[in-house]
Amino acid sequence: MTVHASPLPAVLSPVVTPFDASGAPDTQRLAKQCRWLQANGVGLAIFGTNSEANSLSVGERIHALEQLIAAGLPASQMMPGAGACSVTDAIALTRAAVDAGCAGTLTLPPFYYKDVPDDGLFAYFATIIEATGSPKLQIYLYNIPPVAKVGFSLPLIERLIKAYPKTVVGMKDSSGDWAYTESVINACRGTGFRMYAGSESFLLRTLRAGGVGCISATANVNPKAISDLAAHWQDNDADARQAGLDQVRGVFQKRPMIAAMKAAIAHFSGDAQWAAVRPPLVAFTQEQSQNLVAEMNSIGFRMTGL
Amino acid sequence: MTVHASPLPAVLSPVVTPFDASGAPDTQRLAKQCRWLQANGVGLAIFGTNSEANSLSVGERIHALEQLIAAGLPASQMMPGAGACSVTDAIALTRAAVDAGCAGTLTLPPFYYKDVPDDGLFAYFATIIEATGSPKLQIYLYNIPPVAKVGFSLPLIERLIKAYPKTVVGMKDSSGDWAYTESVINACRGTGFRMYAGSESFLLRTLRAGGVGCISATANVNPKAISDLAAHWQDNDADARQAGLDQVRGVFQKRPMIAAMKAAIAHFSGDAQWAAVRPPLVAFTQEQSQNLVAEMNSIGFRMTGL
Repeated sequence: MTVHASPLPAVLSPVVTPFDASGAPDTQRLAKQCRWLQANGVGLAIFGTNSEANSLSVGERIHALEQLIAAGLPASQMMPGAGACSVTDAIALTRAAVDAGCAGTLTLPPFYYKDVPDDGLFAYFATIIEATGSPKLQIYLYNIPPVAKVGFSLPLIERLIKAYPKTVVGMKDSSGDWAYTESVINACRGTGFRMYAGSESFLLRTLRAGGVGCISATANVNPKAISDLAAHWQDNDADARQAGLDQVRGVFQKRPMIAAMKAAIAHFSGDAQWAAVRPPLVAFTQEQSQNLVAEMNSIGFRMTGL
Repeated sequence: MTVHASPLPAVLSPVVTPFDASGAPDTQRLAKQCRWLQANGVGLAIFGTNSEANSLSVGERIHALEQLIAAGLPASQMMPGAGACSVTDAIALTRAAVDAGCAGTLTLPPFYYKDVPDDGLFAYFATIIEATGSPKLQIYLYNIPPVAKVGFSLPLIERLIKAYPKTVVGMKDSSGDWAYTESVINACRGTGFRMYAGSESFLLRTLRAGGVGCISATANVNPKAISDLAAHWQDNDADARQAGLDQVRGVFQKRPMIAAMKAAIAHFSGDAQWAAVRPPLVAFTQEQSQNLVAEMNSIGFRMTGL
């Protein structure tokens, strides 16, 4: 199996975005969190769904990226979200990522208009790629139909790879539909296409099927154990490790995930400001937070080094 | 029945946005179209769904608004779309509309995250209103669950009206669900709330139930007849007029609406550039355009004065 050359690790976190007391993205707290994630073996898929990226303006996203680079975080470990409803916004985000030297971009389909034809989605990605005009651009398609309500058909993926074989290099699949994930891996086998599962629940299956890893919300709270499984997936204890990951994920998955992860970070870092989210999301109450921590304690899970 | 004082007419068009050969919004063509719509009795709900507003950047929308004002179009007849996924974007769009003197804004709920709680949606609108901080702001809630996949519950509407009685003044309801429209009209009766149907198919029913009019895609191609019904809805021939509107709408509704309306404008204006759309939408082929024109001819419908 060949895959596209990339410095990106097997596991990335859609880094949760901290907000300061005024509601603005707090790039200092974000840089600190990115360093902690790096130290725990995961790459930086900043500006993903779990980063509340779609609650940020394009200007806020580009400014935060520049601040992270200025703070010394490595662009080679970054796959910023560069998707938007508007192709002009997506071009601006993509150019900023390429200019910063990011190893890839994670690009949603335009998600306002529904039931759009593949021809229109192809034209959207072609416009971004042509307007960016850089051989350094590596795009990962971001498939998350439960949220975006617009997805990628197999013929669309194949057409994009054929037209832009050096640029359309992979996918994050958050469909939650293993049959789909597997069908994309199989259809793209031999093209170098890099498949990341959208959740560590599918990490072992993805690696065994020929994928490269996962980009998962819960990598914000459980980075070390997830990256350890990716590093040891051919070991005898891989299934036991997967079961351990699933147990931790279960605690977060049954709650509003973003608010829950931020509440956990606030608790274990002792920095209450971390609990803040942007509307339309709602931060955890003290009671919700206590229940979450109690359940983490009950399975012996804690975050350290924050 | 009392309604909020507003200079806005009973019928508005979500004005289709023309693009030039480079793909940029063409503000000169847009100004010309707005003048034609005004001359045919309809107001300017620029930057709606049918304007491909969510395919434009915030900067493109604000620039186009400024150009329309500079071209002499009256802000008192304008209800620009000011919705976005990001509250920072929505604030920027809302401020620009207020600064331009627009009679209202039409504001989508944030539409990326799904299944968000009413508390979060309330906080989103409260943040926009508090940040704008203008007694001149009049917000119309834009309910379009078939596209946005996020809607407005009755308790949310009532809570917004109670908290901001002079600011949250009405709704455009594109749910296509008459029972919902009627329930909102009834729940808000006496508060001054102004209900616009999201399609002229519901115009007569809306006016009879106590609503104020409609904001409809098809007002881009059939403005005069729609505004005439709104002006004569208590006349004996109102039901016959409604049937005439429904016939024209039927021609467009069974096709991709935005591309179809642009093809019609291109045909009747003799300006082929009007057919252009932004990805992910796809412009009509010559054949699709000919079929559309043939069907318009078959019912004796044409656009004049373009």
